[in-house]
Amino acid sequence: MSSLKDLFNPSGIAVVGASKDPTKIGHLVLRNIVEYGFKGRVYPVNPTATEILGLKSYPAVSTISDKVDVIVVSVPNVKVLDVIDDAGKAGVKHAVVITSGFKEIGNVELENELVQRARKYGMRVLGPNIFGYVYTPVRLNATFGPRDVIPGNVAFITQSGALGIALMGSTIQEGIGISAIVSVGNKADIDDADLLEFFDEDPNTSVVLIYMEGVNNGRRFVEVASKISMRKPVIVIKSGRTEAGARAAASHTGSLAGNILIYETAFRQSGVLSVKSVEEAFDFVKTLSWNPVPTGDRVVVITNGGGAGVQASDTLADDGIFLEKPPQDFVEELRKVLPPFASLANPVDLTGMAPEDWYYMSVKLALQNPQIDAILVLYCHTALTSPIGVAKAVARAIEETKISKPISVAMIGGPDAYEAMRYLTTLRIPAYPTPERAAHALAALLKYRKGREYLVKRISKKQ
Amino acid sequence: MSSLKDLFNPSGIAVVGASKDPTKIGHLVLRNIVEYGFKGRVYPVNPTATEILGLKSYPAVSTISDKVDVIVVSVPNVKVLDVIDDAGKAGVKHAVVITSGFKEIGNVELENELVQRARKYGMRVLGPNIFGYVYTPVRLNATFGPRDVIPGNVAFITQSGALGIALMGSTIQEGIGISAIVSVGNKADIDDADLLEFFDEDPNTSVVLIYMEGVNNGRRFVEVASKISMRKPVIVIKSGRTEAGARAAASHTGSLAGNILIYETAFRQSGVLSVKSVEEAFDFVKTLSWNPVPTGDRVVVITNGGGAGVQASDTLADDGIFLEKPPQDFVEELRKVLPPFASLANPVDLTGMAPEDWYYMSVKLALQNPQIDAILVLYCHTALTSPIGVAKAVARAIEETKISKPISVAMIGGPDAYEAMRYLTTLRIPAYPTPERAAHALAALLKYRKGREYLVKRISKKQ
Repeated sequence: MSSLKDLFNPSGIAVVGASKDPTKIGHLVLRNIVEYGFKGRVYPVNPTATEILGLKSYPAVSTISDKVDVIVVSVPNVKVLDVIDDAGKAGVKHAVVITSGFKEIGNVELENELVQRARKYGMRVLGPNIFGYVYTPVRLNATFGPRDVIPGNVAFITQSGALGIALMGSTIQEGIGISAIVSVGNKADIDDADLLEFFDEDPNTSVVLIYMEGVNNGRRFVEVASKISMRKPVIVIKSGRTEAGARAAASHTGSLAGNILIYETAFRQSGVLSVKSVEEAFDFVKTLSWNPVPTGDRVVVITNGGGAGVQASDTLADDGIFLEKPPQDFVEELRKVLPPFASLANPVDLTGMAPEDWYYMSVKLALQNPQIDAILVLYCHTALTSPIGVAKAVARAIEETKISKPISVAMIGGPDAYEAMRYLTTLRIPAYPTPERAAHALAALLKYRKGREYLVKRISKKQ
Repeated sequence: MSSLKDLFNPSGIAVVGASKDPTKIGHLVLRNIVEYGFKGRVYPVNPTATEILGLKSYPAVSTISDKVDVIVVSVPNVKVLDVIDDAGKAGVKHAVVITSGFKEIGNVELENELVQRARKYGMRVLGPNIFGYVYTPVRLNATFGPRDVIPGNVAFITQSGALGIALMGSTIQEGIGISAIVSVGNKADIDDADLLEFFDEDPNTSVVLIYMEGVNNGRRFVEVASKISMRKPVIVIKSGRTEAGARAAASHTGSLAGNILIYETAFRQSGVLSVKSVEEAFDFVKTLSWNPVPTGDRVVVITNGGGAGVQASDTLADDGIFLEKPPQDFVEELRKVLPPFASLANPVDLTGMAPEDWYYMSVKLALQNPQIDAILVLYCHTALTSPIGVAKAVARAIEETKISKPISVAMIGGPDAYEAMRYLTTLRIPAYPTPERAAHALAALLKYRKGREYLVKRISKKQ
């Protein structure tokens, strides 16, 4: 079996079923590869065209004289085996099979034959029944999804097609930077565990997000997930948690969603963060990919609204994070710079009249205090302050101290608060529209820290 | 005791402590009243000014010759009693006391004296320690929060100031139409129950949202909440649910958050929908204020992405809503208009290649089928369809059939999906960015229906 390294770093990639027709998937994929600016060589393959999108077209993969590492296949299902044979004989080691019409419609035999045929050539198969894959370090977007994926450090593995494509778009909307997006579809060969092994080694990836309906080999998943979780957080949306959901999943990809308790146990054992919704997943991705992992879980909350502080305290408590008194020296430093009516407990309540500068000073002091592990900043847009001003004050505190400490910000209010939230996001400072989401996302980071500690202990005991 | 009718429908309102200084609360409140277009008479009261914001200013409330129904008080706390005396003698029946520096800072005596003094004149007090109040049917915005509140049918009662103002802004950002916003602060006199009684009778209000840290009289709250819940849904964000949160609440408004189990029992008994986060509250407000209450809970899910359908099925199941087979005649009608590969189970899976028209037809058929009580529409932005096109298709189905049936829509994807979601919101069709939020919000409507049914049964038994 070849490793997946060449799948993600191909020197040459061929699109089999490339088309001039702009409504065809074979056209959309080729256009994304070209327009997103892939750094390697690209070969359209189509028996009837001589040129597509300005590139010379080939009648078959075997007619390309340069080395092809990956074929992206978008031909009718009945023609896929021929393509595998042709490319396999030509020495291609990775087939990305977009084509559907396999196990998901009951065509199990064709899918088995696809895998066996590929194995014969030592070829790995991604798919079938997928929308393609992305790897931003080499500017490769071989999908028929949105083009302008934001480069970053998050790898996203998805078993769902349409939802996966839509969430690809959501990463753009949410400002989430991506290292890879991999549509795994029927997982006939390459599965989550294979990909986790690759992302564990991949220096461009620091967080992995998986949308999963089911896994084929649970034991291997736990083994690989435990290993990567000691270095990088893995977040899983396990779909089909309930009987009703599992039924829907079965009629969708034909995958067995299985007993959720078994999954939940497996996730806990392997340090995986399991979430129920795509919003939760994306919220977690932001705090986990833009923050360092802290060494403790002493959180200080800074707010200008008591109510926001209460809501955040509740959410943190739900997540097992209990606010303690802030460190004495922090309180003393705060007392010097804040007026007497500010409440120096935890949450620190700057009160509704807090100007930008109070945020700047208190966030700065919290960053500088070694007895504080993480900071939750809550801002309620009141008549007296400007959301963008507060956002900039927070950013300035971080920039000036050059201290990298976990932080999560809520910008609560109308359109101006929304813009300020987006501003922070562009700086890769996790920001949310509500106190609960900001608190819950920060708690995820602390939960990951704890899970990792437990994993390391358990595994060092074994050795 | 006077009723609250004149508080919300004053023919004349005086702002005591009105100011020319644009940074003063007395200025901001007066400006909001004037600029939002209050339909009654407005009187600035300030001993040193003759004119403020183009209005004649009076040295005291008692010097105004016309009838004043409400005084909005923004003077230092030590002067509040004098203002009450002056206005009380002049026959004013409602004081909205914005001024802080009462019980919330331990000044219990002053607060008690305020209430006793007001009672002497038969005057009701809203506050103190509040940001004012809004009643859109008479274009009254007597707050120092955002001005351009969207008129609608939702009343929002908030115990928190800064968070309340910020959420006022959020209603604008989220397109939520407001009948009233009431900052209750220390609740020295007027409390949630008084306001619920008013909103129960108020034809302009159909949903009430409360941010509550604690109630003074639990028994009365349950009684009044049970009564209104039989006609209008009440959603409560009970803050300070946890010990940590309760501690934060105590240091904030000095209110005792109390035992959450007692609150949860009270909410359940009175048919109140209890939520944990402001996002959940706002999501619920949309489905509850823009939809009719259904007569059953048979939901049909229509999706173009299997994964989105699975996620929605899971969320609905978590909320106690289990999807059943769609009605046979609905399936037969669908079969006539959809291609054979569409899956006609529940969720109905139109598949990723579904054009706008398939959405139009299936939503239309679901609206027309009397055996379907509510519709959940999920759309994943794929390469082949346009989010705004799908949004318009859904809107067209509703418009053409003129059938009012509960509906909730998820528009999942990037910036285009976000815009399509906002488009639906402007049409008062509840739309969300994720399948889980759309499903959970629709479930809230069905939960309200059930709770109301139970309330009606229980109360008819008693009689």
